[in-house]
This record gives sequence, C-alpha cells and structure tokens, in this order.
Amino acid sequence: MQEEGIDVLLITDPANMNYLSGYDAWTFYVGQMLIVMVDEQEPIWIGRDQDINGARLTTWMSKTHIIPCPEAYYHAETTSPMVFIADFLHQHGQSSRTIGVEMDTYYFTASAYQFLKEKMPHTTFKNAGALVNWVRLIKSEQEIEYMKRAATLVEKAMTTGVEMIEPGVRANEVAAEIYYTLINGTKEYGGDYPAGVPLLPSGEDTTALHLTWSDRQYKADDYTILKLAGCYHRYHSPLSRTVTIGETSDEIKETAAVCEEGLHEALEAVKPGTTCEEIESAWYKKIESRGTVKDSYLGYSIGANYPPDWGGHTANLRKGDRTMLQPNMTFHMIPRLWIGQLGVEMSETFRVTETGYETLTDYERKLFVK
Amino acid sequence: MQEEGIDVLLITDPANMNYLSGYDAWTFYVGQMLIVMVDEQEPIWIGRDQDINGARLTTWMSKTHIIPCPEAYYHAETTSPMVFIADFLHQHGQSSRTIGVEMDTYYFTASAYQFLKEKMPHTTFKNAGALVNWVRLIKSEQEIEYMKRAATLVEKAMTTGVEMIEPGVRANEVAAEIYYTLINGTKEYGGDYPAGVPLLPSGEDTTALHLTWSDRQYKADDYTILKLAGCYHRYHSPLSRTVTIGETSDEIKETAAVCEEGLHEALEAVKPGTTCEEIESAWYKKIESRGTVKDSYLGYSIGANYPPDWGGHTANLRKGDRTMLQPNMTFHMIPRLWIGQLGVEMSETFRVTETGYETLTDYERKLFVK
Repeated sequence: MQEEGIDVLLITDPANMNYLSGYDAWTFYVGQMLIVMVDEQEPIWIGRDQDINGARLTTWMSKTHIIPCPEAYYHAETTSPMVFIADFLHQHGQSSRTIGVEMDTYYFTASAYQFLKEKMPHTTFKNAGALVNWVRLIKSEQEIEYMKRAATLVEKAMTTGVEMIEPGVRANEVAAEIYYTLINGTKEYGGDYPAGVPLLPSGEDTTALHLTWSDRQYKADDYTILKLAGCYHRYHSPLSRTVTIGETSDEIKETAAVCEEGLHEALEAVKPGTTCEEIESAWYKKIESRGTVKDSYLGYSIGANYPPDWGGHTANLRKGDRTMLQPNMTFHMIPRLWIGQLGVEMSETFRVTETGYETLTDYERKLFVK
Repeated sequence: MQEEGIDVLLITDPANMNYLSGYDAWTFYVGQMLIVMVDEQEPIWIGRDQDINGARLTTWMSKTHIIPCPEAYYHAETTSPMVFIADFLHQHGQSSRTIGVEMDTYYFTASAYQFLKEKMPHTTFKNAGALVNWVRLIKSEQEIEYMKRAATLVEKAMTTGVEMIEPGVRANEVAAEIYYTLINGTKEYGGDYPAGVPLLPSGEDTTALHLTWSDRQYKADDYTILKLAGCYHRYHSPLSRTVTIGETSDEIKETAAVCEEGLHEALEAVKPGTTCEEIESAWYKKIESRGTVKDSYLGYSIGANYPPDWGGHTANLRKGDRTMLQPNMTFHMIPRLWIGQLGVEMSETFRVTETGYETLTDYERKLFVK
C-alpha cells in the first residue's frame, strides 16, 4: 500500500477478504468491504447486519472491528451499503486520504463506485488493481497443503467422471457424481464448493469451451473434455482430461500425444528465475514442429477463490507476461490443441520448487478412450 | 427502453442475457455483453473469441450477430473487452445515442464502466437499473413449468438432507448428497447448478445466516437450517426448513409453530391486486400477537438466475414495497424468527394465481426433530 501511495484499501474481492481476515461466507452477493488502513494493525469488516455473526465466527478480528450495515441499505434503488461505508470513513477521518479500490473485481459494481464517489467528493480514489492478489501469488506451506488436499479431491472426481462416461449416461448424472465426490471428500477431510462448476460438455457442445452440463445422453463416438477443480478451504486444484467414447481417429490420438509432449516440455522448463512467457514459449516450440494450431494462453496462477472464477488474476503463462517464477508460486497449466472445431485438453496444477516443479495433481496424462 | 429513453441497452446480467437470447454458459467471469438496440429486431452478442461457439449453440440469434472479442482484450491491465465493445458501438453509429447500462449488476465492474466512458466521451449513459429484471417478473407458463421441475428437485434434496442429518455425520457429507440429488434429477430430466450453494450450518455456525458447510460432525442437540434451491434450465425454486437433532426446547417448538402459522397467514393474503408490503404486513400482524422478534424482509421474486444470487432483484415482500401482485409472479417467502442467537426458518416458493396462490414447493411445514 505504501509503494502504491494508498492509505486506505477497500477490499471487495472475497478471496482477498478471506486471505487477510479469514472471512468465509456466501455473502459476496451483497455489498460488503474489508477496510485496511495503512497505519492500523487490524482491518475493519463492514457487511450486512444479518451477517455479522459469520464475520465473528470466521475472522481473527475483534468484535469492535466488525461493523453491521443496517438492512435498509440493501436491495434499495436510492441507497447502497457504499453510502454507509462512505459515512463510516468520513466519521473516522479517512475521507481526506488516498483510498484504493479494486476497480475490476466482480462484486465492485459501477454503481458501488458511483455511490462512493458521490458521498466522498473530495477523496482521491486510486485503482488498487490486483494488489492483494499479487501478495497471494507465493503460497505458504499451509496453503500448499490445502491445495494438495484439493488435488486429491479432483483426482478422485476425475476418476469418477472418466469411469461413468458411457453411451446412454446423461451428462447431469456424471456431474452429480463428480459433485458428490468433490464434496464428500476423504475420511480425513471434506471438500468445499469449487469457484466454477464442473464442465463436461457432450456432443456438439464440446466445440464450446464453457457450456455447462445438460441432461443429454452421451452417445457412441461422443467426445468430451472434463474440466474440474477440487476445493479445500477455498483453495483450488483444477484438472482437465479429454475422453472419447469408442475408438477415435488417428488424428485425435496424435493430437493428444502432441499435447502430452508439450505439457511435459513446458513443465520441464519450470524453475525459479524463468519467466511466465518462457514457459509458454517452451510449449509453443515443442508443438510448433508438429504443425498443430495452438492457443496463446497456457495457464494462470491458482489458489483461493470464490465464484465465478478460480483463476488468480495475476501471473499468466502467456506471451508478454514476464513475471519471474519463484518457489511456491502455483499455476494451472492447461494446454489445448484444436482439430477443426474439436479441442484436446490436458492439464496439471503445479507449484514451483527450489529447483523445478512439483505437480500437485497426479493423474495419467493421456487421451481416455472408453 | 422507449419509456426510459434508452436507445441502446447493454446487458451484463447473465440471467437477463439468458432471458433475451437463450445464452447459457459459464462465461460471465469475463467481459461480455448482449446489446439490444431499440430499432433492431435482433440483439448482438459480444463475448470472448473462444466462447462464440457457445453463443451459436445456445442462442436463437444469427451468426452475424455473434461477435468475437479477441483474446488480447482479456486479463489485461491496460485494456478491456469494454474497449472492443465501445469501438463496435462507434463503428455502428451508436455512440451518439443514449446507452443504458445495468449499473448494479455483479459483472458490470467499476472498471468496465470507466473503460466505456473513456472510450465514448460524448455518449450519454443512463442507468437502466433492473429494467429487464422487471420484465421477467411475470412468468410464462413455460417458465412456471421449469420452476415446478426445480421445485420437485428441491423437495427431493430436502428429504435427502433431513434424513441424513444425524449425530456423527459430517455436514459436507450431507452437502454432497444434496448436490447429488439436485443434479441427478429425475428419470425425466436432470438438474442444473443452483445460483447459490446449499446452506446447512451446524453448531454455532447456525447463528450466522450465510456460512457454507464445513466437515464438522453434527452432534446430539445440534440445530441446523437447510436452505436449498432446485434449479432447472436456470430456473430456481428455493426451500428452507429447520432441523433439530434430538428433542429441543419448548421455546423452539413454539417459535416454529408461530413461524408456520405466520407463513400460512401471509400466503393466504396473496392474490392479484394485493401489494408486496401487505403480504409482509399479514405475516407481521400474525406473529406480533405472539411476541416474537421478526425480520422485516419476508421474501423476494424468484426465477432464472446465475451465481452468486438466485433472487430476482425486483419486488420484495417487505415494508415500503408497493409492487402489486399479478398472476404468475413468483416469490420465495422465507419467514425467520429469532430466539436469542438462533433462527427458525420455514419457506415456500409460490406463484400468484388468478384468485390467490399456488405453492410450487410442497413440503411438510414443521420443525423436523431427528
């Protein structure tokens, strides 16, 4: 905050709130903020009156720093929780300082910002961007442990999905079993809800990357990509595999082999000091010689998150991103190769180690032919 | 749009996009818009390049109206899909017109609006608010049918939850079975993902309304509120019930009885021509005589939605809301009574009929004592 010239930081991103305070509840659908002042030890949570018990139970913060915003500010056209928050900042002598806001966070709406500016006309607002997200880029050992647990969950769910997909089975039945597996967890621990739903398109839906399931039955010669994430205490480990029902063309098999080789090559390039774009470049050089069309977006940082996205919104494995890898950064590497309208996808979640990489997910890398 | 003086409407709310175009995909985590021009028959979809197949497959729109926004606009600090959309509007002669934006929609961020304004400095922007949400308030017979299917799913899931909750069972195991039931569906149809996760707090978490599950085991004398929604083709029917493990105090039993009577009384007040606040008033008058503290927010309109909220963001059953009930409006009525820190909750999803009401959910209204 000091480097950015920000005195007061208003945190809207639920994952950033969680990281700084421990707060964890399904309340991000209404206005709330975690307020961090550069010269105060403890942040302030302001949220809906009915949700303060949730803040008391899940954060490390003292009761005096958990402030209820009255119900009348919610679901109203002419006011907003942001009005209450602006008044609070005024009353606590913060309105003449530089206030950072997360301008591109899902739950910081255009309206929220407008209410803040109207109520604090003399305040300097500054876009804090993904300031806290960047702090979260390097994981602690505890965070890595959470991600390993999430990885165990997604491996189990992938096995469930691959085993269940057969002609005559409806996609929603597979999604139901996958959800069951992700959340039921292991004997030692349960699973949390992932920030995105399992994707497992069937038939022509496979040509679209983000269609959710339907109750269409899988058919002989169908083709699907399972894109799932395990989640433990909000920490995610995603995993993707491609599944064909019945024998498939040599072209698809060959493309899957190229994808696997490229994934391996890119992982082998991972070590501290290498840049994100160099990883993408290693992937590209490997597949380029095989003449296959490619996407330029090989992956993204990964960790704690809330719906609608498990991606970290910081470092990306793609051309132009010169973020230097450091130990305990974690990424989801998700190469995809296209054959006409069909994509072949195969991914791993990994962490950067002192000398290279460690995949957190450990699942056979191949095209699954059912 | 004509009444509001809006020439061009930029739709960000995924449920509004779905209602107008059929578009249905998990892509609302990146910038996209449905553009409705007051003098054009067909809207325009602009979204991420890799997602245009999803638009082609799920919308009724012609290919020429599905416009890919290049990948370079995404996950970038210095640009945004809104820059591409602004350029598109310029090129199509729309920038001198009045453009409506959904200012308080989750996925219309402060940054998105700023990019639009910067790129279109001479354009008049107007807050369209919940314009399309209000159009969606009265449901078609098809929509009611979808909600009835969602209601069947949530009844099954509630039965699963009530049956499973026992001492020694972990909350995540119950959540896993509930998810399975919601999505596995019936022989005739499968279930969709609900816009909010099942809530089933245990122990002291029950004092907070929106904590999600943990892997804590239910204990003897525990207490929980199951708040679930079934979802079919994005249409929701929510349902809440309170469950105690083992015999509970007479005070809790009495409060549950009052809650049930109040719910019944409020439903009986439902008919076309009555206002939303009159329904809340019927509830309040009934419980007032019983000396129980109450919340002022008795419910909300309900229908199609996407994460993070299944509520309609239009009419609310509360004081001050004079929206007049009309046939085929649908609501989730969710009374809650507090005994100290503990809440008793019992809800129904209903539609307004020509003469009164019809509950879509049909589940025994009582305190479930396990």
